Amino acid sequence: MIILGVDPGLRTSGYAVIEQRQRQLQVIDAGTFSADTELPLPGRLLQIYRDIDILLREHDINIMAIEQLYAHYKHPRTAILMGHARGMFLLAAADHNMPVDEYSATRIKKSLTGSGRAGKEQMQRSVMSQLSLARLPTPNDVADALAVAMCCINEHNRQEIIL
Amino acid sequence: MIILGVDPGLRTSGYAVIEQRQRQLQVIDAGTFSADTELPLPGRLLQIYRDIDILLREHDINIMAIEQLYAHYKHPRTAILMGHARGMFLLAAADHNMPVDEYSATRIKKSLTGSGRAGKEQMQRSVMSQLSLARLPTPNDVADALAVAMCCINEHNRQEIIL
Repeated sequence: MIILGVDPGLRTSGYAVIEQRQRQLQVIDAGTFSADTELPLPGRLLQIYRDIDILLREHDINIMAIEQLYAHYKHPRTAILMGHARGMFLLAAADHNMPVDEYSATRIKKSLTGSGRAGKEQMQRSVMSQLSLARLPTPNDVADALAVAMCCINEHNRQEIIL
Repeated sequence: MIILGVDPGLRTSGYAVIEQRQRQLQVIDAGTFSADTELPLPGRLLQIYRDIDILLREHDINIMAIEQLYAHYKHPRTAILMGHARGMFLLAAADHNMPVDEYSATRIKKSLTGSGRAGKEQMQRSVMSQLSLARLPTPNDVADALAVAMCCINEHNRQEIIL
């Protein structure tokens, strides 16, 4: 099973591609897309869309995992702009017939650390440990993409155990 | 000059294609796209994107006109979802190399009625009058798309006069 975790943003989006064979996990690709901030919004969205499209063609991904929207945002305008970028990822997934799993921030934290209130560093340490990485994952966009991908893998493994 | 006015939404999006020859205006196409609300979000976004793409192929449009984002929204989550749909329109415009003009709600109202605080019905009457329509434009999504297209046309004509 190959899972793509994504953390969409209008400036920088993080992604992480994790493969699970039996119970062995391997990060096969991870990084960020950066959109040219001097471009007007439509041009930036096109850059983001094309970058995701290339990624989805490169790997044989089974599921895209992404953070759920909250009910409340401190900065609604910024959040709506993020919504534009998030739409690019969902569109690309639909265009590739790829299912999308959404997880709340609390569920991601709980899945990785056992606590829905875990801080950023605890999350990074947990991701590092579970994926046997040599150092803490950075930048934040990649760390968040790894976390949502790991949450998706944990949830699917849990379902298999229950079944 | 052919202007496309759009009013993006996740359920229903309105569009209006207006052609200006000299100072004669003609609505050459107008209507709504409705996305299947039973589909998950990515599938709905794909429907919306494909509908816009077909529209942009049908007409030789010069500019897409769209309402600007506000600073504040009453319902941030709904607004972010609207942002996903809005992103589809901007992406389609960029993919067709089409410039996008954004206008604030106040500017649209002022351009059509002389008052930035005009109500919905006053706006509809103004659109009806300026476009010599036989009746009030409906539904709201189409009325709003006509209004933003008219605002764009008025602003461009004004610039020509100033120049």
